[in-house]
Formats: sequence, C-alpha cells, structure tokens
Amino acid sequence: MTDVVSPSDVSYPADGFALFPDRSVVALRVNGELKDLATVVTETDAVEPVTVASPDGLAILRHSTAHVLAQAVQRIRPQANLGIGPPVENGFYYDFGVDEPFTPEDLKSIKKEMERIVRENQRFVRRVVTEDEARAELADEPFKLELVALAGGPGSGADAAEGASAEIGAGELTIYDNVTRDGETAWKDLCRGPHVPGTRLIGNGWDLTRVAAAYWRGSEKNPQLQRIYGTAWPSKDELRAYQERLAEAARRDHRKLGVELDLFSFPDEIGPGLSVFHPKGGIIRYEIERYMRERLLANGYDVVNTPHITKGDLFMTSGHLQWYADGMYPPMKLDETVDAEGNVTRQGQEYYLKPMNCPFHNLIFRSRGRSYRELPLRLSEFGSVYRYEKSGTLSGLTRVRGMTQDDTHIYVTADQVEAELVHSLEFVLQTLRDYGLNDFYLELSTKEEGNPKFIGDDALWQQATDTLRRVAEGSGLELVPDPGGAAFYGPKISVQARDAIGRTWQMSTIQLDFNQPERFELEYTGPDGEKHRPVMIHRALFGSIERFFAILLEHYAGAFPVWLAPVQVVAIPVAEDYAPYLETIVTRLREAGVRAELDRSDDRMQKKIRTHTTQKVPLQLIAGEQDRAAGTVSFRFRDGSQTNGVPVDEAVERIRAAIAQRALVDTAEHLA
Amino acid sequence: MTDVVSPSDVSYPADGFALFPDRSVVALRVNGELKDLATVVTETDAVEPVTVASPDGLAILRHSTAHVLAQAVQRIRPQANLGIGPPVENGFYYDFGVDEPFTPEDLKSIKKEMERIVRENQRFVRRVVTEDEARAELADEPFKLELVALAGGPGSGADAAEGASAEIGAGELTIYDNVTRDGETAWKDLCRGPHVPGTRLIGNGWDLTRVAAAYWRGSEKNPQLQRIYGTAWPSKDELRAYQERLAEAARRDHRKLGVELDLFSFPDEIGPGLSVFHPKGGIIRYEIERYMRERLLANGYDVVNTPHITKGDLFMTSGHLQWYADGMYPPMKLDETVDAEGNVTRQGQEYYLKPMNCPFHNLIFRSRGRSYRELPLRLSEFGSVYRYEKSGTLSGLTRVRGMTQDDTHIYVTADQVEAELVHSLEFVLQTLRDYGLNDFYLELSTKEEGNPKFIGDDALWQQATDTLRRVAEGSGLELVPDPGGAAFYGPKISVQARDAIGRTWQMSTIQLDFNQPERFELEYTGPDGEKHRPVMIHRALFGSIERFFAILLEHYAGAFPVWLAPVQVVAIPVAEDYAPYLETIVTRLREAGVRAELDRSDDRMQKKIRTHTTQKVPLQLIAGEQDRAAGTVSFRFRDGSQTNGVPVDEAVERIRAAIAQRALVDTAEHLA
Repeated sequence: MTDVVSPSDVSYPADGFALFPDRSVVALRVNGELKDLATVVTETDAVEPVTVASPDGLAILRHSTAHVLAQAVQRIRPQANLGIGPPVENGFYYDFGVDEPFTPEDLKSIKKEMERIVRENQRFVRRVVTEDEARAELADEPFKLELVALAGGPGSGADAAEGASAEIGAGELTIYDNVTRDGETAWKDLCRGPHVPGTRLIGNGWDLTRVAAAYWRGSEKNPQLQRIYGTAWPSKDELRAYQERLAEAARRDHRKLGVELDLFSFPDEIGPGLSVFHPKGGIIRYEIERYMRERLLANGYDVVNTPHITKGDLFMTSGHLQWYADGMYPPMKLDETVDAEGNVTRQGQEYYLKPMNCPFHNLIFRSRGRSYRELPLRLSEFGSVYRYEKSGTLSGLTRVRGMTQDDTHIYVTADQVEAELVHSLEFVLQTLRDYGLNDFYLELSTKEEGNPKFIGDDALWQQATDTLRRVAEGSGLELVPDPGGAAFYGPKISVQARDAIGRTWQMSTIQLDFNQPERFELEYTGPDGEKHRPVMIHRALFGSIERFFAILLEHYAGAFPVWLAPVQVVAIPVAEDYAPYLETIVTRLREAGVRAELDRSDDRMQKKIRTHTTQKVPLQLIAGEQDRAAGTVSFRFRDGSQTNGVPVDEAVERIRAAIAQRALVDTAEHLA
Repeated sequence: MTDVVSPSDVSYPADGFALFPDRSVVALRVNGELKDLATVVTETDAVEPVTVASPDGLAILRHSTAHVLAQAVQRIRPQANLGIGPPVENGFYYDFGVDEPFTPEDLKSIKKEMERIVRENQRFVRRVVTEDEARAELADEPFKLELVALAGGPGSGADAAEGASAEIGAGELTIYDNVTRDGETAWKDLCRGPHVPGTRLIGNGWDLTRVAAAYWRGSEKNPQLQRIYGTAWPSKDELRAYQERLAEAARRDHRKLGVELDLFSFPDEIGPGLSVFHPKGGIIRYEIERYMRERLLANGYDVVNTPHITKGDLFMTSGHLQWYADGMYPPMKLDETVDAEGNVTRQGQEYYLKPMNCPFHNLIFRSRGRSYRELPLRLSEFGSVYRYEKSGTLSGLTRVRGMTQDDTHIYVTADQVEAELVHSLEFVLQTLRDYGLNDFYLELSTKEEGNPKFIGDDALWQQATDTLRRVAEGSGLELVPDPGGAAFYGPKISVQARDAIGRTWQMSTIQLDFNQPERFELEYTGPDGEKHRPVMIHRALFGSIERFFAILLEHYAGAFPVWLAPVQVVAIPVAEDYAPYLETIVTRLREAGVRAELDRSDDRMQKKIRTHTTQKVPLQLIAGEQDRAAGTVSFRFRDGSQTNGVPVDEAVERIRAAIAQRALVDTAEHLA
C-alpha cells in the first residue's frame, strides 16, 4: 500500500489502468482519497494502488457486489425500491422496499442473475449530477430521493442515515452507471463510489447468506425493508476459507457448547441477559476466579467487597447518573415514611444497582487518612454489576445485562503512574498467556475532541493519553488507535487477543483517571506532610468473567485444559468386573483433590468412551484384566491417543501434577 | 421446679409461706399457673415452688422491681402518668407520661427513692376489682384507664397492647397494693401479677440503666412516653457479673473492633445496612469463603452462580411475592417500549432484587431432565441477597440489608432425606468446630397452627417436622422447641452456638421443604422409569458471611487465628540496622504465601510492638545482633510470651504449617 508509483514508466496525465496494469489493483488512492481506477491523475498527485486484497480493496469489491445484487433483484422484481447497500465486515448488504419478503427460492434466482451480470462484465462508470438531475433520474426510487434531499440539506453526508455514506459523499452527488459492452446503461445507482472497474472482477468468490427485516434508516417509525446479506472475497478459495472459519466458529459457538456441555443457561423466568451457571460451568468459573485471586494476592493486590446497590447520591458524585444513566437500571425508591394523614414525614431515597464498582472503591480509599507509604493501593473485587443493555443487543455471555468484573482500582502518586501501568500490563499479559492466549495487540482509546460526554480538563486528558501511549509503545506490541473509544472519565489501553481460530477479542482494559479522584476529593499525605491527590487506574483483566468464560469456551472449543475441566478424569472399566479396581483409583484421585468419576452406567465400554469424548473430558482411565493384574491403568486422551500400563502411583502423581501446573493435557505427549 | 410439695408436713389449706419457708422461693406455680406466694392452696392443687433463680422467678423479681421504680418516680414527680412496666430479658422497664424527659440526675434521685422503698419492705397485696372500681381508683391514670377499657372490650388481654399482658390478664382485673408495715397502701398499680412477697426481697442486685423515648402502645400515632430501663438479679454479685459480661461484650463489639482494626464500614453515601469490606476485612472474608468452598467441594457439593435480579414471575412461582413481599426491595420496571404516539407497544417487566437464592437453584434443577442417579444434587452458591429490613432494626453486620449467604439447596429422593439431613448436620457442626465453636444446642422451628403465612399441606409439614426432630435427637445435642419460627415453606433445625463469653448465636439452619418442589414442578426419573418429585433441603451454614464474620470477630475479640489474620506476621528490627536481615525473612515468608510485613516506620521497637499488639497481629518476628549473627529470629506472641533463637528455616516452616493447619497461634506453646 505504501509503494507510491514511480512516474518514470508512464506519461502523464494517465489513469490507473495505465499506471497499474496488474489486475489485482482495483482502485487508486489519490492524495489520500479513494478513487476509481479510471481516474486520470497528473504528476503532482500522490498516487497509491489499492489491491483487492487490502482492507480498502475488499470494501470496494464488496460494495460493487452489492450493486450487482441490487441490479439482479430489480431484474427479477422490477417494483423493488432501492434502499442502501454498503460494504460491511466480511461482506455487504442491500435493503429493498418490496411487497413480499424474499424466499430461499428468490435468493437462488437472484444468485443466478448475479452470476449472469458478472459474466456480462458491465463497466462501473462514475457520473457527477446536479440535485435536479438526480431527482429526475431517480423519480421511481423514493428512498434514494430522500437521500438526495439529505445530501442537499444541512449537515449533508455526515448526518445521513446509517450506512448512507456509501451513497452520498460530503461533496458532489454522483451516480454510477453499469454500462454493457454495447455501451448501454443496464442499471444505475446513486453512489459515491469508488467501484471495481467492471463486474467480471467480482469473480466467483461471493455468496448470498441471509435475509433479514430492517427499518429504513434504522428507525422503527420508518417503513420496514428487506435486507439481503452477502459475503465477497477476491477468490473462490478465500470464500471457502471464510465459510470454513464460519463453520468452525459455529461449532465453537459458546451458546451451543454451553447447552451441549451443560455449562450455563439464560432462563426465561429470570430475564434476558441474565446468566445462570450450572454445576459444570460453575466449577470452571470458580477455578478461573480462584486462580485469579491467587495471582492478585501474590502481586500485592488487596481484596475488598462492596454492595450491589447504593443511594443515587454516590453516582451523582462519580458522574455516572449524569453521563451514564442510559446504561443503568431504573431506581428503587425506599425508606419513605408517611404519617397518619398521609403526609411524607421523611423523604425516600432512590437506590440504584451498580453499573460499575469504582465509586465504592473510592469510598474505601477515603474511609480514613492515607499516607504515601500505602501507595500504590490496589483494591480488587469480583464485583457483579448490572447494565441496562437493550434486549436486542444481548448475545450469549458476550453481551449481557448482569456480569461480574474482576475489577481493580489502583491509587498511585503521580510519580508512580508509569511504573504501575507497566506492572499492570505485564500482569495482564502474563495472566492471559496462562490460558494459552499468546497473540496480542493493543488499542489506545482516546476522547473525541469536542464531545461533551468526555468529562474533565483537556490538559489532564492529554497527559493521561500520552502516558498510556508511552507505556503501550514500550510493551513492543502493535498499537492501534481507537479515537472516541475512551470511558467518559479517561483514556484507556485495551489488550486485544487472537484466539485459536484467529478471531480477535477485546480482553483486558487499563484506564487512567484523573477525574474521579477530583470528584471524590481523594487525598493522601505525602512525605512533605502535605495533602496530595492520587491518580486512579481502572483495570479489568477479563472485562467480565462471563465474557472471558465465553471466549475461553470458544478458544478451547469446549475442550478445557485439565485444571479447568468440570470432570477432569473419568474411569471406564473394560467390563463391570473391573469397576471395583477403578473405584479405588478414583477414590485416591478424589483424595488428591481431582474431580474424578467412575462410569458405572449400563453402557458398553465403546459407548462410554464416545460419551465422555463428546463431553470433552480430558482424561479417560481404562482398565481391564491386564491392568488389574499388573496394578496399572491406561490413559486415553481427547485426541484418541493412549498410554497403556501406567503404574497406579505414577498415574495419580502425573494427573495431580498436570492439574497443579495448569498444563494442557490433550494428548499422550502432554502427560509423559 | 419439678419438686411438687409433699403435703405431709403442713396442714391444708395453707399458703406458700407455710409450704416453702425458704426465702429463695418467691412465688408458686399452682396447677400450672404462676401465683403469689400468699396464695392459699388445698390438697387437690398441684403446687410447685418458684425460686428467684429460675427463669419465672427472675421475671417476677424484675416485674416487682419495675413497680418499685414506678412508685419512686411518682413520689418524685407526682404528675407522672403510668404506662406499662413489664419484665424483659435481663431486666425491666416502665413507661411514664411526663412533661420533661428524665435527666441523669433524676435517675440518681429515683434510685435513692427505690432503695428507700426496698428498705421499707412493703408487701405486694393482690386485690380483685370490678371494671368500675378499677376506673374509679385509676381516674388520674389515663393510660391505665385505656388498659381497663381494653380488658373489658372484645378480645381482652390477648389483643392488648405491647407488654400490657403484665397489667391485664385474660380473666379478672386485679390491682396490686404496696402495703407498708403500718398497713397503709403506699402505692398501687393495675397488674395481673404475681409479685415477690415484699419489696425487701428485691435486695440490691438491681440498677437503672438508661432512658429512652417510646410511643404509647408502640404506635407513632400515640403520645410519646419516657421509658426507664433497669436490670435486676437475685444478688449484688450476680448484678456485677452481668455488668462485667456487658462490659466484655462492649469491648468485643464487632462495630467497635471493625473500626479499630480497619475491617469494614457502612458509608453514609451507600445507605444503611449495606456493608463495605476494607482490605483487612476483605482478606478475612475471602479466607472464610475459600475454606468453605474447599470443604464443600471435598464433600460432594456443586458450585453454581445466579444473578441478583429476576423478573417478578419467578418470585410468584416460589411464593415470595405473595408471602414475603414486605421483606423485599421495591421493583424496577424495564423493557417497556413506547411508540411515536406515546402508546405502550410492549409491556414492561418488573424486576426484583433477590431476597433468597432458592428459586434460582430450582431453575437449574429443572434446566434439563434429572435421573435418580444424580441425587442427592447439592447446589451451593455464595449468593448475595437483599432484604428490606426497617432502618431502625439494622445493627452492624448482624442485621443488614445486603448479605451474602453460603446457600445450598439439596435435592433428594424421599428415601435419602434422613441420611442427607444427618450428613448436613455433621458437615455443619464440623465446620463450626474448625473455627473453635464447640458448644452447641439445636432449635426446632415449627409452624404455628392456623397461621396462613405457612403455606402447603399440613400432612407434609408434620412429616417434615417429625423427620427433622428424629435427626436432631439423633445428634445427641440438646433440642429446644421454637414454635412458629419456621420459614413460610417448611420447618427447620437451627444450630445455636455459644461463643467465648457464653452468648448464644443462631448459626446454621437446615430447612426441609416439600412445597417448592411442588410449586416448581420439579421431577426426576426414578429407577422405575417414572417421574418423581424430589424433596428439597435448604441449608445455610453461616446464615450470612457478614453475620458469621461479626460473630467470629466478637468470639475472637479481634484476635483472629493466624490463618484468618489480615497480617499474619510482622517483622520488627531491634534497630534499623537489622531491617535488611528481617527483610530477607519476610520475602521468604511471602514466597511461602504468608501475609508478612516488615515495619520500617520511624517508631522505636517498643512502640512498634505495642502498635502491632493492639492491631492483634498473631506473630511478631524480632531480630537484633544476636539473631542476625546466629541466623535465627525471635517469635513474640499476642499474649506477650516469646520464643527466642529459632533458626530461620525452622521459623518459616513453623509459620507455614500453622497456617496450613489453621492452628490457633496465640502463645508460644501453640507454635512449639
């Protein structure tokens, strides 16, 4: 992307076809702006090729495929009105105003028609139009007319509807014509572009995926449209790889595995976004918490405990009620007293469920005088918080209404900030590595200039942001900017981790906060005997236990390492005769603290092996006549590998050690 | 109390003075009813002596002392109107209608006057009166006239005001005259009696303790009276012992120790009854929870996790909203959708904070089919619940609004009930013993017949109560009945434990419940292939962590055993020179998981020793030249005893072992 073309081998002015004859180049970046490949540039322009494999190139490919979809739909249903059709992650969609929703059969016909359009190799031709021209050409397209009006109105493009920026830019209005080999305009659309040069470039690396209803411009007050989603890639192979990743993700979907492995549920009786952990999920969750506490205590963190509710005043002091009320549950009113005549003799108090733990920890900090000798003071809590997410946005354990944060607030002197941030980041990365997450990058979330949702002094924001950037850069990890993504009280670094199938998840966050100490008037006595204000660091390692649980479940595809597995060892006798022998081994394992079970069901051995393999139990212990006679046992692992004839003492010790070391025990090798 | 008098040595009819010349007998129980000692009985009556040391005797002594108090008050303030004056635990009170509250000086004068009345040895003489007579005699006592009217009205005594049963019985109206040696009536009071024979028997084992305001008949709508509290005992020595117990309890008061040791607080900003655990309290709480989990897991309990809020429907199913709503927080209404015209397009849901965990565990039980092979299924959770206690009833950590229960619900077949109850009771007692609580008795709480608050079938209640009684009796512990004390869904056994200063606390409860399985339609498949209903056992070991924490804090008087102590070891150098030497030892201890600190403050050694003794740190490690030269260290214990010259390796190992064994390490002997 950075190889700016050298002008030596072409004569100017020239277009992209001349500059980059390579078919993999689908557009240009001219002086920083994306343009069609047909754009004519001069010597003074800075020109970069945009290949189809680049993020920009992929978005252009997908956008062009959306146009092909829309043309195909209007060939089949000429009355269909066009909504918008932008590229999205991995694909695109197009919205249509139609009388009848699309059926699976419709999609098949549409795909056929799209293939035809691709083969026709229509050129995408850009044409600037006036508002009046646009209105005249799009007279039959009521939604497009609305967009034209928006483009002309105040605020123009930036203010336009969800996704409409694909249609209308900040400047001139443009229409893209699809022109056939015969020079005829087969179809056209209001669009800011750019597009690939011709439809044949779209190739066969695309597919239609699903249909959903969507309101015009995202509002329930507007008409409902039918949205067709698709995916598009530079080649058929890449499409197949993507579909395989999807299938793998579906196999690993934590909501599916949660049911199959009996880990958790969301009972209707309780309400959406409120999870219930069953025994097998509960023990995994407990092991995660226990190990985390162990690491916290060994690293100089204190354990505190605070209530789930509070009088509203506390969230006024913190600013949550002013800036975060939408994300909070409505209040409960209590302690009002009324006399015999019905007059209120004491005003009631409004109590709120906490959406965050920080204000509570601030109260602990200021519960007594503090000395600089006590800093850094690291207050940690597994604090359950409740946030009023819209029910439509909820998703399994990754987007919930009730969650338990492993929340720490660290109070430091100004001098300690940087060292403490380095220490926190190291702690966080080391802990994630313990779970087999090794591939990270960092995101630096900053305030959006001028947005009043970000409270506090600009200079403090700048100072905090600079410090975080220095620490992030010092880690040696890739750093990606996230403008506008900060919390309302300060900027943050977040750790993004790639899982076993290459997806990235936002994990830990480290936030710097100069505002809350001010609002809560926190103070400590310095070595100079004077009062000073501490700086506050918010640090959540897992985000929430629920979300981390979901990520681990998908990362491991349900095959938890032995220390986390709900059932760590299952013993399977070759025949009922050998059950008593295995029972003595199971008893010894249990005494050693191992979650071991003996399968005495009526099933035959092969069935038992299948059952526990499906349940992803890390270790199966099998014994028959030979093992009993020799005082040994056979290990069977999740991958089907086996180690036979292990003496019982050794077997117990190996298992105990694998658990104590939090080892990955998936194959015979790992328990050698 | 059971020695019914033999009529052989007196002639009938006779009174108690003749039957029991012993001065320790203060009243009679005649045919089961308490009577004055002067009551004349005949041969056919069953007569038992009531000694002043018996519970009944003490109540009579205290009631008579209340009369002496009231007489003394009216001698000093003749305009004072009499309210009621019953005996209470450890003492008595009397309410007075007065223009001015009593001052500490008033109490001194009143005490002097009471001593005078005691010396006068006025006789208490019972006299039956008609309603008209009572009204005439008590014309100047408006409150007493109200009681006379109550006694005459429907419902009579049983319906009377708080405490008024001391004044008016179910049958005839009586006045007690205080008659001097001259035969004159010095004072009189509407009263059902009985009383001690004369005021001299009251002796000098009493005192006045405090004054408080109280509404007539306990209602804010009535006039406010002044209540004088006192305590009374058979002797001065017993009074002194009681006062010493009170002083010891005050020294151990967990609210006081909580501040002194920086363990917890109740910030005003959060609200009454909502506790915040500071780092030192937080680590104790965590150790209690961790050990409990360890024991639960080793004993076949499962760990589950459920939200703190739910839609109201769940508590309709369980019956909580019908029978327990007063104890619940008010609802939060959410998820209502309103259209552009302001019409509600989707009804909102009322969400409640949970006051109990059981309904959530029931949902886990029925989240899938269950087999008899899975039972007993023991679902345990440290579940934080919220109960709307009146703010006036809140007290430190023992009566709170937010608490974390170590809550277990066990699902069993009918055949398993008794064995599981025995197992639960053993588990509970063993766990309490681990904390040094060894002195127990049991209470059996049953339903009150006819009270509709107890739901479900009578036969099931009877069956459950019988089973619990059998198990309780089988434990060999003393069993005390508690009629009417059951939960609304079933009877319970509670374990009462005596602490280090002899006070008893209700600890664990084990409840049997046939109702919830019915209401939730819980089922399992039996060996017969048919569906069966399980029985449910509710078991909370600590009641709540907060309450158990408070009890332990008072039981240990803040001197927690080493495994629970927030700071387990503090190292104190004889002089700054020896700090680096001790630092290496502290580092080794920390690596061994010990909460060890080095005191490097500017204080002198003796001051440091005092500070950490006051903070009740179990072990102080002291080192100077001699220890450094020899590679040893000196132990100093909380009782001031010392063990000198312990080699460092041995010291580290002894401390590690004491913590691992959860030993009591208060003196040199315990760490030998």
